[in-house]
Amino acid sequence: MTLNVYLSGEIHTDWREQIIEGARDLDIRFSAPVTDHDASDDCGVAILGAEPDKFWHDNKGARLNAIRTRTGIEQADVVVVRFDEKYKQWNAAFDAGYAAALGKALVVLHGPEHQHALKEVDAAALAVAQHPAQVVAILRYVLTGALPA
Amino acid sequence: MTLNVYLSGEIHTDWREQIIEGARDLDIRFSAPVTDHDASDDCGVAILGAEPDKFWHDNKGARLNAIRTRTGIEQADVVVVRFDEKYKQWNAAFDAGYAAALGKALVVLHGPEHQHALKEVDAAALAVAQHPAQVVAILRYVLTGALPA
Amino acid sequence: MTLNVYLSGEIHTDWREQIIEGARDLDIRFSAPVTDHDASDDCGVAILGAEPDKFWHDNKGARLNAIRTRTGIEQADVVVVRFDEKYKQWNAAFDAGYAAALGKALVVLHGPEHQHALKEVDAAALAVAQHPAQVVAILRYVLTGALPA
Amino acid sequence: MTLNVYLSGEIHTDWREQIIEGARDLDIRFSAPVTDHDASDDCGVAILGAEPDKFWHDNKGARLNAIRTRTGIEQADVVVVRFDEKYKQWNAAFDAGYAAALGKALVVLHGPEHQHALKEVDAAALAVAQHPAQVVAILRYVLTGALPA
Amino acid sequence: MTLNVYLSGEIHTDWREQIIEGARDLDIRFSAPVTDHDASDDCGVAILGAEPDKFWHDNKGARLNAIRTRTGIEQADVVVVRFDEKYKQWNAAFDAGYAAALGKALVVLHGPEHQHALKEVDAAALAVAQHPAQVVAILRYVLTGALPA
Amino acid sequence: MTLNVYLSGEIHTDWREQIIEGARDLDIRFSAPVTDHDASDDCGVAILGAEPDKFWHDNKGARLNAIRTRTGIEQADVVVVRFDEKYKQWNAAFDAGYAAALGKALVVLHGPEHQHALKEVDAAALAVAQHPAQVVAILRYVLTGALPA
Amino acid sequence: MTLNVYLSGEIHTDWREQIIEGARDLDIRFSAPVTDHDASDDCGVAILGAEPDKFWHDNKGARLNAIRTRTGIEQADVVVVRFDEKYKQWNAAFDAGYAAALGKALVVLHGPEHQHALKEVDAAALAVAQHPAQVVAILRYVLTGALPA
Amino acid sequence: MTLNVYLSGEIHTDWREQIIEGARDLDIRFSAPVTDHDASDDCGVAILGAEPDKFWHDNKGARLNAIRTRTGIEQADVVVVRFDEKYKQWNAAFDAGYAAALGKALVVLHGPEHQHALKEVDAAALAVAQHPAQVVAILRYVLTGALPA
Repeated sequence: MTLNVYLSGEIHTDWREQIIEGARDLDIRFSAPVTDHDASDDCGVAILGAEPDKFWHDNKGARLNAIRTRTGIEQADVVVVRFDEKYKQWNAAFDAGYAAALGKALVVLHGPEHQHALKEVDAAALAVAQHPAQVVAILRYVLTGALPA
Repeated sequence: MTLNVYLSGEIHTDWREQIIEGARDLDIRFSAPVTDHDASDDCGVAILGAEPDKFWHDNKGARLNAIRTRTGIEQADVVVVRFDEKYKQWNAAFDAGYAAALGKALVVLHGPEHQHALKEVDAAALAVAQHPAQVVAILRYVLTGALPA
Repeated sequence: MTLNVYLSGEIHTDWREQIIEGARDLDIRFSAPVTDHDASDDCGVAILGAEPDKFWHDNKGARLNAIRTRTGIEQADVVVVRFDEKYKQWNAAFDAGYAAALGKALVVLHGPEHQHALKEVDAAALAVAQHPAQVVAILRYVLTGALPA
Repeated sequence: MTLNVYLSGEIHTDWREQIIEGARDLDIRFSAPVTDHDASDDCGVAILGAEPDKFWHDNKGARLNAIRTRTGIEQADVVVVRFDEKYKQWNAAFDAGYAAALGKALVVLHGPEHQHALKEVDAAALAVAQHPAQVVAILRYVLTGALPA
Repeated sequence: MTLNVYLSGEIHTDWREQIIEGARDLDIRFSAPVTDHDASDDCGVAILGAEPDKFWHDNKGARLNAIRTRTGIEQADVVVVRFDEKYKQWNAAFDAGYAAALGKALVVLHGPEHQHALKEVDAAALAVAQHPAQVVAILRYVLTGALPA
Repeated sequence: MTLNVYLSGEIHTDWREQIIEGARDLDIRFSAPVTDHDASDDCGVAILGAEPDKFWHDNKGARLNAIRTRTGIEQADVVVVRFDEKYKQWNAAFDAGYAAALGKALVVLHGPEHQHALKEVDAAALAVAQHPAQVVAILRYVLTGALPA
Repeated sequence: MTLNVYLSGEIHTDWREQIIEGARDLDIRFSAPVTDHDASDDCGVAILGAEPDKFWHDNKGARLNAIRTRTGIEQADVVVVRFDEKYKQWNAAFDAGYAAALGKALVVLHGPEHQHALKEVDAAALAVAQHPAQVVAILRYVLTGALPA
Repeated sequence: MTLNVYLSGEIHTDWREQIIEGARDLDIRFSAPVTDHDASDDCGVAILGAEPDKFWHDNKGARLNAIRTRTGIEQADVVVVRFDEKYKQWNAAFDAGYAAALGKALVVLHGPEHQHALKEVDAAALAVAQHPAQVVAILRYVLTGALPA
């Protein structure tokens, strides 16, 4: 079994790199959104022309980013969604709902501070983890049956 | 044409009542989550037994609430998702993504303060409104072709 | 058998009225886009606020109109798409493709002047008619088995 | 991530070659309709026998071409649809609707002269570009996160 | 539970009337193809214009009839397909395959003379009957749990 | 909101009657398999002819019963599956898996003796109850938001 | 573009070999049912045990063969169905309907003797050919755009 | 044709190894659940933290295992489900129903002792076998057309 795994969520920390590194020996194809924050925000206007109205500036970029996100989620077997402490992250919760509706296996990654606010998202997940290392352990177990020592 | 409309989002204000009242002459079947906050939080343990661990207390309730939410979204032609200024509302963003993946017509309702944080959710919407009265106008236009004076 | 029939296409002539009138004794629920041309063009800005850029003015309205169009097509058993001599009507061809992909029974209505340009759209149709009266005859035959005298 | 990209639309200019050339270093599988105009028009009768009636001559060819078009769109992650200034291009708009209904990421490519007539098609697109170079930039950004200098 | 039942197959005997009559007290909506043989063959040319080539004459009618057949099968919970001794009935076998692919409950009705030739169609069926009275008994049992005395 | 609820599982006790009675004031359409045990076992041979081989006797009846079961599950919004202490009930677990794959809201009803053996089935459920009265409370809550006193 | 092509229909002549040979330079993966007639008829009892009743003997084999047929059709982009002059070939018509319902590109291959009896099957096809060489030409054109000299 | 085969069912005997060994020369990708019984039971708590309540201990593990099971079934062309004499095996029956709803080709493997209790599961299967060697023979026949000597 090969796994396609999409890593959705905040693009401010290196949580993806931790997972990809920890899983480097596993038969997994990882995908993720563009993680360069400025590129992600401005891609629409950078390619298709400036928009004086911030709403349309953001809309242009968000729809362009959706090409990558939707493809990533649709190709995925497993979708991991990370929520950190600070940001609104409504796009992450949106991705989680999108993945759940498509029947993808959802893994949610967040600290205890958001337990109550994320109860609905967690309820849709097949696993709720607190640390990237646990996500690696999940992927390793799913592919090989091996558990952490 | 009859419309089935699901009203997702915060359950702390009367925004749903405003829409339902304004649309009372239209051929619409409205549905929504349970809006009694305590009932919504405690329904799982109230019916199926107490859980000492808050995570499972919340999980039990969230999965029970999902029976109503998923049915409402799946039966809907239009899903309206409201974000107000205060709350985390990840369940609302989750519902928006769920609805988008199922190809439902998504209408998002929020004030200008969240414009940037909601750019991805807005980008998936067929309409972005600021006030319940605009949602009523949208539903009236969709059903009758009439626009506000 | 009841039929849900969506009437897509140009909103400049009374072709829909001719069909609905001719089929008034049949068990059919007709739906159609908003046929008031100015309302259709301006609905987005009329409800959700002006847009100085024509592109966004039109985009706002088109996405709002899509709520009605997609619902109509998705609920339909039969989608009739009319092309007249003059207009570009790319939205009509778009609706035809949308309906075809969803496996709807497609009926196309146009005069001989566009036969070659509409060959791909016609090829996807289960019937190609030239006059509204033929569409009525088709619907009557499908529902009752009766043919024109 | 690999992308399957279907290039639909007018077959009178070299717009496809520009995109394929500009994207030659990217992990993309391009497909397109048959671009030899006479072959496309006459394939049906050339293989399956002549038809004296132009309607059936065209129908035979259009249905045969549909084998390639539908396969291309169904296998695609991204569907690019080009409209140039001159032609009716209803088959292009049809392809756009077909792709949209299947949830494909739609990119539309056209000049400003058709902005109003293409408003519904543009509204369904995740990006609206004016030049093939922009389409290349979109594909490059989606696959690598890199933006034009 | 209400059942929608589509009765496909030969239109030369009164087998449908036998079933509908026998099931008249049950909560069933029956549908069927047009059973007037000449109308069924000529509907295309009668409504849409004559075709000198028999192939196109038949094709026009068959595509028009498909509007009714596909709607009937898609709306059905149960599809009954009858094969009698004489006719080629490839359209009936086609309908059986169409229904099977859509996951409809298939009931096949034929005499013992075709047992071997219909083995694949029978293998896809949830019941294989020899007489219309058995089909009535099946529908009665499915709806009420009652078995023949 | 109306709910369609399919009640799957053992047909040896009156657990369905308890639920239907308790929910009689709610807007619910209940369906269930045939609960007359002998009729269920022998329906195939009773209608379609005796089978000396027990395997085919049972197969005939099981496929006939599947017409009702599949229709009930496919029409349902909620599928309740009951497991009692004694029986093998593989058909109940099969129904639960069938419903889960179709995205139905699954409610499982069983006593504590099977907790470990039913862990996979319970894990797919949105609620796990021990008594029919809890199922009634769940349905009442889902439809009205009211919780038990 | 690679094509997966399933070759359904009579297993008494070498029509498949003609097509596969003629298309040997094309990027096509062909699949087909088991063409050894006795193996096809007896596979069920040969592997799973004898059945004294011819109906169950045939049923066992037909269901076993369905594993291969359904997989072949579901994996296919194009399904070719051949009808020759003699046989009942209801399984071929069944496959054609199955493929049509799944939206596969259907190509039908038969001589003129069955034109009228196959009108419904032909009407669902994207191409109707008389000779295997035409099917090869169709596949060559679809993949390369080249037409016969 | 390549086959993806998921081997579901009891993890107490070596029945999977027998099949995989016997099929080693065939073009098949086998997948299966984790077969280390303790790892399967405890994977949830081992990775994500202990749960004092056995229900949640089991639930955590079952949902984690579902990542692998659902992926395996969804990727499969054929799902083989084994029932042995002893265990409750409701998860196996659940997998069978899940696979049936997704239209997978189902093969069931069990001894004669459960014939009656498994009648519904068997009725959904395309083949019912008693020994792993028969499953190998089925896979060999499906891929190559060869039958056992």
